[in-house]
Amino acid sequence: MKKFMEDDFLLFNDVSKKLYNDYAKNMPIIDYHCHVNPKEIAENVYFENITQLWLGGDHYKWRQMRSCGVDEKYITGDASDRDKFQKWAETLPRLIGNPLFHWSHLELKKYFGYEGILNGDTAEDVWNICNQKLKTMSVRDIIEMSNVELICTTDDPVDSLQYHKKIADSDFSAKVLPAWRPDKLLCIEKESFKPYIEQLAKISGIDIFDFSSLKKAITIRMDFFDSFGCNISDHGLSYVMYVPASEKEVNDIFVSALSGKILGKNEILKFKTACLKFMAEEYFKRNWVMQLHFGVMRDNNKLQLKNLGVDTGFDCIGDNAPMSQLAAFLNCLAENQSLPKTILYSLNPNDNAAIDALIGCFQDNIPFGRVQHGAAWWFNDHRQGITDHLTSLANLGVLSNFIGMLTDSRSFLSYTRHDYFRRILCEFIGNMVVQGAYPYDIEFLGGIVQDISYKNIKQYLEK
Amino acid sequence: MKKFMEDDFLLFNDVSKKLYNDYAKNMPIIDYHCHVNPKEIAENVYFENITQLWLGGDHYKWRQMRSCGVDEKYITGDASDRDKFQKWAETLPRLIGNPLFHWSHLELKKYFGYEGILNGDTAEDVWNICNQKLKTMSVRDIIEMSNVELICTTDDPVDSLQYHKKIADSDFSAKVLPAWRPDKLLCIEKESFKPYIEQLAKISGIDIFDFSSLKKAITIRMDFFDSFGCNISDHGLSYVMYVPASEKEVNDIFVSALSGKILGKNEILKFKTACLKFMAEEYFKRNWVMQLHFGVMRDNNKLQLKNLGVDTGFDCIGDNAPMSQLAAFLNCLAENQSLPKTILYSLNPNDNAAIDALIGCFQDNIPFGRVQHGAAWWFNDHRQGITDHLTSLANLGVLSNFIGMLTDSRSFLSYTRHDYFRRILCEFIGNMVVQGAYPYDIEFLGGIVQDISYKNIKQYLEK
Amino acid sequence: MKKFMEDDFLLFNDVSKKLYNDYAKNMPIIDYHCHVNPKEIAENVYFENITQLWLGGDHYKWRQMRSCGVDEKYITGDASDRDKFQKWAETLPRLIGNPLFHWSHLELKKYFGYEGILNGDTAEDVWNICNQKLKTMSVRDIIEMSNVELICTTDDPVDSLQYHKKIADSDFSAKVLPAWRPDKLLCIEKESFKPYIEQLAKISGIDIFDFSSLKKAITIRMDFFDSFGCNISDHGLSYVMYVPASEKEVNDIFVSALSGKILGKNEILKFKTACLKFMAEEYFKRNWVMQLHFGVMRDNNKLQLKNLGVDTGFDCIGDNAPMSQLAAFLNCLAENQSLPKTILYSLNPNDNAAIDALIGCFQDNIPFGRVQHGAAWWFNDHRQGITDHLTSLANLGVLSNFIGMLTDSRSFLSYTRHDYFRRILCEFIGNMVVQGAYPYDIEFLGGIVQDISYKNIKQYLEK
Repeated sequence: MKKFMEDDFLLFNDVSKKLYNDYAKNMPIIDYHCHVNPKEIAENVYFENITQLWLGGDHYKWRQMRSCGVDEKYITGDASDRDKFQKWAETLPRLIGNPLFHWSHLELKKYFGYEGILNGDTAEDVWNICNQKLKTMSVRDIIEMSNVELICTTDDPVDSLQYHKKIADSDFSAKVLPAWRPDKLLCIEKESFKPYIEQLAKISGIDIFDFSSLKKAITIRMDFFDSFGCNISDHGLSYVMYVPASEKEVNDIFVSALSGKILGKNEILKFKTACLKFMAEEYFKRNWVMQLHFGVMRDNNKLQLKNLGVDTGFDCIGDNAPMSQLAAFLNCLAENQSLPKTILYSLNPNDNAAIDALIGCFQDNIPFGRVQHGAAWWFNDHRQGITDHLTSLANLGVLSNFIGMLTDSRSFLSYTRHDYFRRILCEFIGNMVVQGAYPYDIEFLGGIVQDISYKNIKQYLEK
Repeated sequence: MKKFMEDDFLLFNDVSKKLYNDYAKNMPIIDYHCHVNPKEIAENVYFENITQLWLGGDHYKWRQMRSCGVDEKYITGDASDRDKFQKWAETLPRLIGNPLFHWSHLELKKYFGYEGILNGDTAEDVWNICNQKLKTMSVRDIIEMSNVELICTTDDPVDSLQYHKKIADSDFSAKVLPAWRPDKLLCIEKESFKPYIEQLAKISGIDIFDFSSLKKAITIRMDFFDSFGCNISDHGLSYVMYVPASEKEVNDIFVSALSGKILGKNEILKFKTACLKFMAEEYFKRNWVMQLHFGVMRDNNKLQLKNLGVDTGFDCIGDNAPMSQLAAFLNCLAENQSLPKTILYSLNPNDNAAIDALIGCFQDNIPFGRVQHGAAWWFNDHRQGITDHLTSLANLGVLSNFIGMLTDSRSFLSYTRHDYFRRILCEFIGNMVVQGAYPYDIEFLGGIVQDISYKNIKQYLEK
Repeated sequence: MKKFMEDDFLLFNDVSKKLYNDYAKNMPIIDYHCHVNPKEIAENVYFENITQLWLGGDHYKWRQMRSCGVDEKYITGDASDRDKFQKWAETLPRLIGNPLFHWSHLELKKYFGYEGILNGDTAEDVWNICNQKLKTMSVRDIIEMSNVELICTTDDPVDSLQYHKKIADSDFSAKVLPAWRPDKLLCIEKESFKPYIEQLAKISGIDIFDFSSLKKAITIRMDFFDSFGCNISDHGLSYVMYVPASEKEVNDIFVSALSGKILGKNEILKFKTACLKFMAEEYFKRNWVMQLHFGVMRDNNKLQLKNLGVDTGFDCIGDNAPMSQLAAFLNCLAENQSLPKTILYSLNPNDNAAIDALIGCFQDNIPFGRVQHGAAWWFNDHRQGITDHLTSLANLGVLSNFIGMLTDSRSFLSYTRHDYFRRILCEFIGNMVVQGAYPYDIEFLGGIVQDISYKNIKQYLEK
């Protein structure tokens, strides 16, 4: 029997262990998609206690606490930080098989040197150990001890990027770049759209009154982001739509929306298609990467949305993201030779094979693939989900070309997810080798592991 | 090599074996969803032979016999029971990898002490052994030797529940409760609807002429079921729809239907939505559990439907059960704080992850989850399907809170399916532990196994 | 550690090894669905070099070369054959986990005696070894050394079948039969439809001016194919549609199309449904097998379609093949008792369970199943995909009745895919046995393996 979370955790044969220890473990981390707050890096925050660091915004944990009947008071409510930690500690052992059980213990081991189990009985000890440590471990300390080379945050086009400026001007060893996330720009159907356009007009200095001036404002903001070294964008969509329309039609729709008219479903889709297409072309010009995240149904519990707002643990997996529209959207860009480097993520694990087959239709002269299937995302970010993703990619595409892991996290402790991923990757490859399904050539295999862990994404992000 | 069906069948390491033998094996059975006939329990029937007990209504077996080219005469036709048994015995060895092969041999071992293989050659022996045994083994004997504590049958709202009364009045050790299955109430599009409403009017004593009086009649019957201790309902749907309409509109639709008007597709969906919502609210008031079974396409072979009727082995898996409508339906109840305890089952195994993510959006103060993902159902009730279900639930939710297994069977011998499930569960957890993916704490692990096998569902069903 | 591709490649226990070596390995091959060119068999071609044999039309390889950034010049362009081979050799080691890595090395071993690894460094050696061998190894030599008993090619109804005649008249040991593939007949929406109908009119000698005369022409060509021993048809569809219409309506649609009218979407579907149904009934009369391939989205990259044409590596997996229409189509045939032997293949692996449940609804008096779930197809033709297919079939249906493997290939070296499949099958069954999930009876198990490898399909194809 293997001891829980021993050094060769998740590694079951000599090849896997060698790949992990000699090749993967010490590679730097490029965390090209996450939701950490640049202000906290800029100000090099010290967290007061483990609850604030661990449970402050982590809706993965909140969700499981609710599933164990914990009262909302101890989750997002006004209970004390110590009491909230207790409830989390009591929840954790019930999460057998859940990645949170692994992640939490990996984090306790790496950042706090705690090698025991966290549960209701050990909560007091763990609370003290962590809080003691946090007195001398700042956000930047955490990032540096994680061997992070690059962080791409998630930023709205209207963001001033003031904290990115502050970080860039400092002597912090890790690079922190903004990533362009214009979700609000597409949401023409929402009440918040018009005020948002006004914000955009103000910060870009452009009077936005038609689709043409909107595009002008967008490019000005892109140039601004670009001047900070931005090299990647990100879109959160329920699905990638493709409902083409003439420039005039799109303009009419946009002008109608500004004038307060309620749009029809098809008008909304036409605007979104046109706006997404325009931005994709602009990414292509700047050699930015386009990330498309889809297959989500958000805010399913309206009562909780009213009480707690968005991103509080009430999202789920959608089953309506038609591949035909995604394919048509990619094709319309490829036909005009303006398809940017693109990463596709679906929240629905059933889409794995379809995505892996689709990306093969749009590859060209980029050494490891213009279009990538992004790492197992969100609800799929667990041992089985990562293995399924690697398996599907290997079966249908070129695993060696995969650009690897990202945290997608709001927490600074999540860099252990890269470690978790690398273990699973090494086991996946090592297991193939010991089964005689690939030749044993440790240098070559180690090279593949390093490519996936670090080198591919480094090259992919180059402008 | 493990011997076929030896005592540690499906258990491959010491932790799994210990969990099964010391914790799971002897837990009582709560079979909270099945299709056994209460009349046969009430009358404590002795079956004449193994064919009547085994092949009388089991369309799982019929289907596989047809797939092996057995003539319908030997399946549902007028061949002798001995000949039918012979054909089944000849079919069985061909079912390599099919759960029927395991179930059948588990049943022969447990109830008849037969430890050999059933095939064409041994059929005569097995026939004699079983029939001899059946002379002294009644339905109640089978239930009692299976350690069954509670059975929830499946009953129509217009059922008199006379057999449940008879059982309750007897000294039978197991509790047998009715479950509310109002499928016919929703089928407003069928010819059988109007006569059914007339039946309902008669038995409830309510003159049903509008939606309001329909609701009145329904609540009267629910109260009647409740007086028998009923604590669970069940719906069989092709998908969970959500097409809301005003009370007036629903009333108009219902009145139209009663007057014989043909309804449009949307009218049908509006009635079904409203009727299902009304019943859900009533379940909530009574603290009943709501079971939603969806993802089925029934009666695909119309010729056989005409010849043999429903539930004869011609159903299959549907791929049109939109998660968005299911989510909206659950939300409309949650918004009004009237979401009953709910168990979701899809016949389509692709829905596993989406369901496991969805249930996490509607949990609250019930210790182990108001909304549950029910055990791998029907076509998925096999070793792989059960393992996939457990894996998905563990990855996305809280496995420890799972309410566990049910037979969903028409046969009294199917309690071995609980044993089959418990073995797979113990292997799933034991394997995780020996891989070092969860700490070895046998008491705690054994507690989880007992919760899932018995304790969670017991508590969940409490009113 | 197992050595790469040693003799017991993919076989991990004694039962699997025994099943493969004593039962599977030497079974003849019936390759009942492939895309090899009968002209090359008729003329018993000698290929000039390995590039022409291996890379001439294999879009599986092309796709992966593009995914590794190889310039199109070295794929379908005007680079020398030696240079193209070099690029492929450099690509291959990157395909870790991809079936092409296994297939290529199995082919090098079996047909060229090369047991090393193909990569950029060994390319020159392998080039010389293969080309030397190809001087004395013709197409017929390859087929004969592969122990092939029957090949069914893929042929258009208007094909003269001249090469089939030439082969039949020769003393070639393997039987080569045409298969009826009338895809162009259904494509009423394409510009090529009218000219195609004219071709059909000419070769059948029938003046085609309405649906009735179209049907007449079709039956004449079917009779012609039948006279060559044809026993199987094949349809490539994005999905199996079912939109019934009256004979008159279908006739009007067809006549409209001939007159150049643009058809509506529903008209197109009605014609396709009627035409497919008519042909299915004709297959039934002739006791031909009907193959339905669906779940594909073709030619997703329009720029490459323009440059390179169809079947060049730009197809992918579709997610819109409604089971309800497939079920309704099969039912309409079953109701009229004219459902031919039918094999269903979906390119979407998510359809496995639904197909396995569906086929069980239409079985009757054919010993091993009138309706079959065809082997893991195209993008799913890999170790995991084959195992998933076998697992699903075993769980839901009767694995022993499976009609087994086919190459679906354009290359004469692909017969090793049958070997690959048989290894995976033997491991699947052997593993079940050593786990104690099926009794150890080597004769019986060996019989199942031989049935699936060869005997079932032989019997299934009998007219």
